[in-house]
Amino acid sequence: MIIDCHGHYTTAPKALEDWRNRQIAGIKDPASMPKVSELKISDDELRESIEKNQLRLMKERGSDLTIFSPRASFMAHHIGDFQVSSSWAAICNELCYRVGQLFPEHFVPAAMLPQSPGVDPATCIPEMLKCVDQYGNVGINLNPDPSGGHWTSPPLTDRHWYPIYEKMVEYDIPAMVHVSTSCNACFHTTGAHYLNADTTAFMQCLTGDLFKDFPTLRFVIPHGGGAVPYHWGRFRGLAQELKKPLLKDHLLNNIFFDTCVYHQPGIDLLTQVIPVDNILFASEMIGAVRGIDPETGHYYDDTKRYIEASTIVVGDDRHKVYEANARRVYPRLDAALKAKGK
Amino acid sequence: MIIDCHGHYTTAPKALEDWRNRQIAGIKDPASMPKVSELKISDDELRESIEKNQLRLMKERGSDLTIFSPRASFMAHHIGDFQVSSSWAAICNELCYRVGQLFPEHFVPAAMLPQSPGVDPATCIPEMLKCVDQYGNVGINLNPDPSGGHWTSPPLTDRHWYPIYEKMVEYDIPAMVHVSTSCNACFHTTGAHYLNADTTAFMQCLTGDLFKDFPTLRFVIPHGGGAVPYHWGRFRGLAQELKKPLLKDHLLNNIFFDTCVYHQPGIDLLTQVIPVDNILFASEMIGAVRGIDPETGHYYDDTKRYIEASTIVVGDDRHKVYEANARRVYPRLDAALKAKGK
Repeated sequence: MIIDCHGHYTTAPKALEDWRNRQIAGIKDPASMPKVSELKISDDELRESIEKNQLRLMKERGSDLTIFSPRASFMAHHIGDFQVSSSWAAICNELCYRVGQLFPEHFVPAAMLPQSPGVDPATCIPEMLKCVDQYGNVGINLNPDPSGGHWTSPPLTDRHWYPIYEKMVEYDIPAMVHVSTSCNACFHTTGAHYLNADTTAFMQCLTGDLFKDFPTLRFVIPHGGGAVPYHWGRFRGLAQELKKPLLKDHLLNNIFFDTCVYHQPGIDLLTQVIPVDNILFASEMIGAVRGIDPETGHYYDDTKRYIEASTIVVGDDRHKVYEANARRVYPRLDAALKAKGK
Repeated sequence: MIIDCHGHYTTAPKALEDWRNRQIAGIKDPASMPKVSELKISDDELRESIEKNQLRLMKERGSDLTIFSPRASFMAHHIGDFQVSSSWAAICNELCYRVGQLFPEHFVPAAMLPQSPGVDPATCIPEMLKCVDQYGNVGINLNPDPSGGHWTSPPLTDRHWYPIYEKMVEYDIPAMVHVSTSCNACFHTTGAHYLNADTTAFMQCLTGDLFKDFPTLRFVIPHGGGAVPYHWGRFRGLAQELKKPLLKDHLLNNIFFDTCVYHQPGIDLLTQVIPVDNILFASEMIGAVRGIDPETGHYYDDTKRYIEASTIVVGDDRHKVYEANARRVYPRLDAALKAKGK
């Protein structure tokens, strides 16, 4: 089985965006704030939005199951207050849950949180637990910068975040550390902010001792870990200067990288320097980069091709990257699959 | 000849730091603000600080000439106002100039600018021109984020920066795009902020059309370009989505990457995906990562070893990376060398 651990619902019916725009307008004009119940999207609409897009590509490319979360750039936690984020997260998470119900063989949901700048992350726990308990979510997306590019929250190693971690550990679910839209003009969302956040999150963990407090806490750093594998020597050296253990002991029991790196040399570097047990297959398809690479004739985000062409990830290692690592990092996914005899 | 385009005076005599600390104290207590003339560092002290450190390592490792600028993390443009930055830049630039005078075969200066958050970059021009005209500086370091991790300045493509670019073009000097200390707790200075800034600067240039306005403007993106080469497919794909020309035409006449990547696989990736004409040898020695890599037994920042071990950069390409590209990107360096018959 090939599990893609990083998919977002980037193709949701337009009614979702329309509702969100009305919600944003409602922040300034409460009389026009829409009710959650005013959003109507039928199962047929959901089916069509998936069958023509993600599911079609999964079949064409040969992946089986996607861990599917709300569109990352649309989380936009910087907009409005906790109540705004709360309604929006509930709507988006319900849609991903419904997709999972409609296509149980192909999609399993992961939740966005109703984060809001300056608001205690503990406020996210009810939505998080609803998604796990009632919706069968196997992971969450945690935004280390709900301000959207102003980086006003404490580092991920700060106790500020511990209420989330306590529940993650209790429920044995990992977090993909994933920012949302940048509202800072310096940072292009998918070309700078996403990659910077990946690098930043890793370095926060490197300087801290978070995993001493939470030995079983697990983070997936997306987009191939930002700049981290390319600068693996730098990070090993910085850990050494900071008198930290070797990175494999200090971080690699808890931090994992996905394969959302959109060219062969990048995947080759990732797989060369990061232990195979820490790499999870992913594509983030129909995401930041949707075109066809003129140098290969294939979609940039068809990351399975790079793994297939790899001379580094071979044999049983390929099974680890495609399936076994995801089942280990997402135990609730593993349990759900086993319950189906898979 | 082997030219290292990225060296900072990280080993300046302690009197410099002491003076700076007094200056910082003087921001709150003007009566205690030191005069520039109160800083006394003798030529012997400068010689010792260089001979025991950078020059020793250059000789051991086999590089000949370093483009030498004030310590990046000490620029700290976020501290105080323009006047504070102005005195500090003048002091630091004078020291690098004196190092160049003391060791003319081995060091040529590049200038830091007296940037200050919210202040018009045009205010930096007098210091910049003094450094070029009187001190023989061959380039500048331009900080895209003088706020130190809050990213409050406009992107590098904004007209805000044009006064600097006009003088760079007029004087035919490149800028290394280099941030300074992060005062944002989210960003570790050398493990996150530096790399993020490199990625950010590249993406700002990608989304804009700066080099249409300044076809001869040249930026060196340090630290191997942050995350850029590792995600070269992503950046090629983003340019495509934004209807920009191919990156080689859109950016690579104007943007260059250094080799401050501290392990062999990183250097191999850099040299595999970035055209050789866009790669300049550099080490940033005695900088962020000063230790010895237990995996190799050699210093992480001994980047010449990675180039020597490369099977990609061979023959005339090695000469380009070591010397010819630097002479092309820094024409005033080339002219100074030619004037000496080199």
